Amino acid sequence: MKRFVTILLLVFLYANSFGQYQQDSAFIKSLSDEILVNGKAYDWLHFLTKKIGHRLSGSNGFNKAVEWGKQTMLEAGSTNVYLQSCSIPVWVRGKEMLSIASINKKLINKKINALALGNSNGTGNKFVLGDLVAFKNFDEFYANLNKVKGKIVLFNYPFNQTFVETFNAYGDAGKYRRSAASIVAKNGGVAMLTRSLGGGEDNFAHTGTMVYNDSFPKIPAFALGLKDADDLYLKAATQNVKLSLQSGASFKPDTIGYNVIGELVGTQFPNEIITIGGHLDSWDVGEGAHDDGAGCVQTMEVLRSFTKLGYKPKRTIRFVLFANEENGLRGGNKYAEEAKSKGEKHVFALESDAGGFTPRGFGFTTSASTLQKIQQWLPLLTPYGTSYLKAGGGGADIGPLQKLLGTSLAGLQPDSQRYFDYHHTHNDVFENVNKRELHLGAVNMAALIYLVDKYGL
Amino acid sequence: MKRFVTILLLVFLYANSFGQYQQDSAFIKSLSDEILVNGKAYDWLHFLTKKIGHRLSGSNGFNKAVEWGKQTMLEAGSTNVYLQSCSIPVWVRGKEMLSIASINKKLINKKINALALGNSNGTGNKFVLGDLVAFKNFDEFYANLNKVKGKIVLFNYPFNQTFVETFNAYGDAGKYRRSAASIVAKNGGVAMLTRSLGGGEDNFAHTGTMVYNDSFPKIPAFALGLKDADDLYLKAATQNVKLSLQSGASFKPDTIGYNVIGELVGTQFPNEIITIGGHLDSWDVGEGAHDDGAGCVQTMEVLRSFTKLGYKPKRTIRFVLFANEENGLRGGNKYAEEAKSKGEKHVFALESDAGGFTPRGFGFTTSASTLQKIQQWLPLLTPYGTSYLKAGGGGADIGPLQKLLGTSLAGLQPDSQRYFDYHHTHNDVFENVNKRELHLGAVNMAALIYLVDKYGL
Repeated sequence: MKRFVTILLLVFLYANSFGQYQQDSAFIKSLSDEILVNGKAYDWLHFLTKKIGHRLSGSNGFNKAVEWGKQTMLEAGSTNVYLQSCSIPVWVRGKEMLSIASINKKLINKKINALALGNSNGTGNKFVLGDLVAFKNFDEFYANLNKVKGKIVLFNYPFNQTFVETFNAYGDAGKYRRSAASIVAKNGGVAMLTRSLGGGEDNFAHTGTMVYNDSFPKIPAFALGLKDADDLYLKAATQNVKLSLQSGASFKPDTIGYNVIGELVGTQFPNEIITIGGHLDSWDVGEGAHDDGAGCVQTMEVLRSFTKLGYKPKRTIRFVLFANEENGLRGGNKYAEEAKSKGEKHVFALESDAGGFTPRGFGFTTSASTLQKIQQWLPLLTPYGTSYLKAGGGGADIGPLQKLLGTSLAGLQPDSQRYFDYHHTHNDVFENVNKRELHLGAVNMAALIYLVDKYGL
Repeated sequence: MKRFVTILLLVFLYANSFGQYQQDSAFIKSLSDEILVNGKAYDWLHFLTKKIGHRLSGSNGFNKAVEWGKQTMLEAGSTNVYLQSCSIPVWVRGKEMLSIASINKKLINKKINALALGNSNGTGNKFVLGDLVAFKNFDEFYANLNKVKGKIVLFNYPFNQTFVETFNAYGDAGKYRRSAASIVAKNGGVAMLTRSLGGGEDNFAHTGTMVYNDSFPKIPAFALGLKDADDLYLKAATQNVKLSLQSGASFKPDTIGYNVIGELVGTQFPNEIITIGGHLDSWDVGEGAHDDGAGCVQTMEVLRSFTKLGYKPKRTIRFVLFANEENGLRGGNKYAEEAKSKGEKHVFALESDAGGFTPRGFGFTTSASTLQKIQQWLPLLTPYGTSYLKAGGGGADIGPLQKLLGTSLAGLQPDSQRYFDYHHTHNDVFENVNKRELHLGAVNMAALIYLVDKYGL
């Protein structure tokens, strides 16, 4: 009885109309059935990961992915597919190697699992030999600055496992990957190594973007597999460890990349634009399956399911595969800049860029009153795995829309436990994506977009 | 502000005391930190799956697992470990084989991915040759009874992908595995094949228990890989398919098995017993990692974390690794029968037997008023992934406690999307369990047990 009263109350809050609630509930069920039974996202992801593979900005893989995105967007039902060009950086890894050269002067030549950080400078393919000095964190580093000059510096700051949401551990540890190289260089270090941003049980290295401070030498920077980082940290405490490293990383001249955009034109308010997307580029290792092939195919699955069910949106819905999220965000910036310069009205944007895992909820960047309105829809989404609609969230690619136009944002928040086992590694491959988890994410995205389209914000 | 008021309201409902809420919240956080950082469940599961492996009732594996359970229970902190003996069945698979012998009289001898169903009868190791007749479901079967006599009958009833909770699809399709053999036998069929109870993208066969109706011949029964079932179903529609099958399955005489029981004796109400458990036996394929190695190691992880934090429960907590869940439930029955005969007071029982996946909530079998009391604890559990505490749930092994003693039950409900990819297959192995998902399940179990112990029901 109490439960019934609660439901009635929610329905009243929701729309003042039980009929409307039933109608929305039935349509969302039909979206779910269509996606869970006939969904193409998983097959599309198979093609993207296995036939194209990784696709860093400026690579052949990225160019092929743009063509694939265009074709798939048409297959999914967009009658209007176009490419939005933007200048993108071209960072190339080149040949690289990190190994233990000697321990206490005994030559050993043991290879370390490592990846040069994205946007880092190489050694001009030369070998750099140096003594290792290892710190747990910046505090240890600053307490021992006298030991840094001429050394290769390792930060072995661990992923904090006490955070239930692994993105919080990623945020906590991220400063080492992003900014430690220039801090080391400022103090005379010759190369920076960092424990990978992951919490798994394996030894895969996790690459990812870093930024130099232009005031200091741009020294090479690598991320290490967790086991190798722990091992080196222990060894360096008691032994003289000499490392040898080489990196062919460098920037080539910028080139042209593309956001791939599909569209369903609104029938009532064509000038009000809703954006849904993921990013098409990935790092240059693995297959970019979870990051962010998943978001791309989920985006097109929403389009496909709307088309298949004959849903004619009131507002214009743009389905966007963004360029260059990983090492520049040029695609997301271009999308927002062009929207602003054309005077477009962007009412809402949703991104999926946290992996193709089972959905748990959505996070929003919007006003308190808008969030309150959105939260009335929760009972319609809980049957599909969404257990919250909360403040805080969005996506890197849609962030500029919010900054430039004040657009309300949302991010799909799938379960985060496995994400940082795969993120930016050779192991972010199709085999680690589960079909039902991926498709269920698309179900929740489709439902939310449907409700925003129908009721506005 | 609204959110703050909501939290205040929940806290008021919860305990009429903000201090108590804070204290519980802090203790649950310490349980979570302890388990996520120092948890042993994953390492224990590695030993159970890789050093012992599968462990069907009466097998060497099961006997080794009992010894391991006893030792691990001591390691986890139980001062009082004992074995509760019960008679258990000994079903042995023996040598088995299913293949296509010919299509339209052309010999081909193609092996089919299949597993004899648990508790099924064999062919006395003889080869049985028969024509295949395939049906989608019982309706098709009953409409074509004249085609059944002397035939090998396949039911290719698919897992219904529209159910978001995969356990509903399992329930929906389960009757074919459990009871179709005798229905086929009643109508003159010589063997029964069924599509495996799974929804994955692979071709693993899923075994599981079946029951004969003693009035009819006990014909052999197999579960087929999904792809092979689909393939045979299509072929049988237009071609004469002759199958060859062999099964060495048989029952040996019953033997003695054991529930492994650890205990923390209550400091205030030692006669009020709370049970937490999983089942130690598994099917005789794969490693029983999710089913139910996960539940066993989570159970002992709760014990370990309580011990490590020095928690002295008010009530007596029993940590139970049950015998023979898969093909007899003799362990669960024995536990409840002995509880009843000793006049024990069992206030609550919790089981984890739905895989070591990320936790989503708990389901309860209890009175409406007790459930209402339990639901006040929800804000304490949501930070760890529990998003609901709802009616309906428990576990096979603790079910008899409810029947005999009226004990309130709960079951951990982890995310179900991947469970029926692995369940009862060669693929239910350690590698498919994620450490953080497994440990987070234990966190939520520990928190619930703590609250039940502290406040009673």
